[in-house]
Amino acid sequence: MAARASATIASAVTVPGFRFAGVSCGIKRRKRDLALIVSDAPATAAALFTTNQVRAAPVLVGRQRIARRGKIQAVVVNSGNANACTGKRGLRDAAETCRRAGELLGIDPELVFPSSTGVIGVPLPMDKILRGLERAVAALSPSGLGAAAEAILTTDRFPKIARQRLRVGGRAITVAGLAKGAGMIAPRMATMLAYILTDAAVEPAFLRRVLRECAEETFNRVTVDGDTSTNDTVLVLANGRAGNPPLSGGPGAAAFQAAARDVMRELALKLVEDGEGATKVVELRIERARSDEEARKVAFAVANSLLVKTAFFGADPNFGRIVAAAGKAGVRFDSERVDVFIEDIPVVRRGVGTFAREREAARAMRRPSFTVRLSLNQGNGSATVWTSDLTYDYVRINSAYRT
Amino acid sequence: MAARASATIASAVTVPGFRFAGVSCGIKRRKRDLALIVSDAPATAAALFTTNQVRAAPVLVGRQRIARRGKIQAVVVNSGNANACTGKRGLRDAAETCRRAGELLGIDPELVFPSSTGVIGVPLPMDKILRGLERAVAALSPSGLGAAAEAILTTDRFPKIARQRLRVGGRAITVAGLAKGAGMIAPRMATMLAYILTDAAVEPAFLRRVLRECAEETFNRVTVDGDTSTNDTVLVLANGRAGNPPLSGGPGAAAFQAAARDVMRELALKLVEDGEGATKVVELRIERARSDEEARKVAFAVANSLLVKTAFFGADPNFGRIVAAAGKAGVRFDSERVDVFIEDIPVVRRGVGTFAREREAARAMRRPSFTVRLSLNQGNGSATVWTSDLTYDYVRINSAYRT
Repeated sequence: MAARASATIASAVTVPGFRFAGVSCGIKRRKRDLALIVSDAPATAAALFTTNQVRAAPVLVGRQRIARRGKIQAVVVNSGNANACTGKRGLRDAAETCRRAGELLGIDPELVFPSSTGVIGVPLPMDKILRGLERAVAALSPSGLGAAAEAILTTDRFPKIARQRLRVGGRAITVAGLAKGAGMIAPRMATMLAYILTDAAVEPAFLRRVLRECAEETFNRVTVDGDTSTNDTVLVLANGRAGNPPLSGGPGAAAFQAAARDVMRELALKLVEDGEGATKVVELRIERARSDEEARKVAFAVANSLLVKTAFFGADPNFGRIVAAAGKAGVRFDSERVDVFIEDIPVVRRGVGTFAREREAARAMRRPSFTVRLSLNQGNGSATVWTSDLTYDYVRINSAYRT
Repeated sequence: MAARASATIASAVTVPGFRFAGVSCGIKRRKRDLALIVSDAPATAAALFTTNQVRAAPVLVGRQRIARRGKIQAVVVNSGNANACTGKRGLRDAAETCRRAGELLGIDPELVFPSSTGVIGVPLPMDKILRGLERAVAALSPSGLGAAAEAILTTDRFPKIARQRLRVGGRAITVAGLAKGAGMIAPRMATMLAYILTDAAVEPAFLRRVLRECAEETFNRVTVDGDTSTNDTVLVLANGRAGNPPLSGGPGAAAFQAAARDVMRELALKLVEDGEGATKVVELRIERARSDEEARKVAFAVANSLLVKTAFFGADPNFGRIVAAAGKAGVRFDSERVDVFIEDIPVVRRGVGTFAREREAARAMRRPSFTVRLSLNQGNGSATVWTSDLTYDYVRINSAYRT
């Protein structure tokens, strides 16, 4: 598995036609907290937002802008404040941020997309953001992606960047992405944000499909704590600078989709690796379910079980917890057919526990990443999800009261 | 709230026509691990079992016995071994345990109900159980309920007993219960078991209704970690010794149902209070939802959120996490109408955070029990559930590898 994919050197990642900045505007102490992503020309845009019923102001504003025009030229992201549960004032603040960015960049403010992550319930410190925007615009650079990736973090331990390059019809194309995970810098924060940027020319409908399908296999297949945020956002921008005929089907489009999937998968796995307090990335594969959908349900029941996640932390090949978590998924299966493997070591055969290779299984679970495979032996459906372990540090990070 | 109801003195709890024993048979080191409950005569029985797809052998055997006759005269419960994921051998072992108990008691073995809780995947040590049964039968006593309540525990910190007395048609009636919670004595254990015993005469159909309705408001409204077990069982036995006309309706039946509900509620709250690692019991009330069912869904989404439960541990009035957890319940609501109160202190008004009385709210959350109330302001549905906090000890208890 690619959970610990080799780090991409941030300063080397550029995407033709995009400039980036990450500056400190004073929301967080001494850390970068304001990111700006600008395309030379309006880019074809597609986005996915949180499924939570409670949506932060920037999500409401951003969604409207994507729906209205389908084009975005600049993205402003602040960390340290989520602009959520802030009522009408929050909507005004998000719009004002975009207006000022548009003014400074000399572009239509409707082409600016806002994102926020951080404390819920506190109004945005607009003076800091508006002053910060001036510095961000001045700092814009084709090699600024690393600084931008830093500026969107909360308590993430490392910036998350991924890149793929490919050739389509003789043209070199780059697909790059930056993301932040479910980290907290104070107890009111948690969000997943990701921005995927490409110089490919892509038909709008195809771009939406690529985003939807790739996210389903990547961002929608990872879990740290099962909690969604008010601000979750994945945005894809395609500015067409590569000069290829717009992609909508055929082998070039398939290659592009594969590259986009690889970028999103790498970012998604980095989110799990950097999950709050996590020490392990576990790939969970459910096989031979009656359908892919049933397999997905079982996979998430296991991936989100506290008893399973603490057993992962303790490197305990505790098949009873795995099987019992699968059993609460709301999916019918015959427990006497279930097989469970930890890294190909059988621990349950036809519903009955086997202890013969228990020590070996425990050893495998001490690695920073390993695979658990559960076969229901009743059909051809399958699903893979990635989860982290539940540790003391998770409790420490999330129970610390603000001082 | 009654989360910390005054302890009932176990030795004082008797139920006419019932005898109890709790002995040590050697599955656990030096602790009682085998309980026996015997009624003088076959009792009308009703039971609820785990909804998990993976069901332990005693659950399969017990369910069949209840369905076949509707009468039970004796209950054998062992702790330390769940007899789950043990295949056909497990079914044989559960039946053999009942057969031997019936033989020793001189009753039809089909009237014996088995329960197990403990390690999953390991066959029952039948020699220990069969020898232990002899000692348990010899130890049976009307005042043995306390010993039985001890013998069913795993890592519970205290035995859980509750009792109500009432008069129906001039007859004194007792309803008493014993339960164990989601504790672990080794990392493969977790189960909720409860036995409710009464000397009332109750019509079978009414007894089933009482159990179903009361459990829905009590045992089905508490959560520690959201994980169900392979062995969860609630059994009610009514042996009729009080000599009342069998209850099926009218004021006497209503009084009986209220007493049964109180007993189950007290046991359920003790389960939360003794939840693994728990330091707090939180009553979560969802009000003004569109229906009771939607309120229940929102309540459990909040009650099982790791971010909410760690905030409870940290005494952090983190309304953002509460609102965001409500938002992922799959229930539509307008976030701009939501009010949140911590012990009547408003922390969210019409979707907007208010920090005015934050310190006061934090103080309230440092108590061992407190109430969180969330109003959706869109209907008349409501639901109450009880949950515990998520602590370092939860992680310690559940990640410790067996030595």
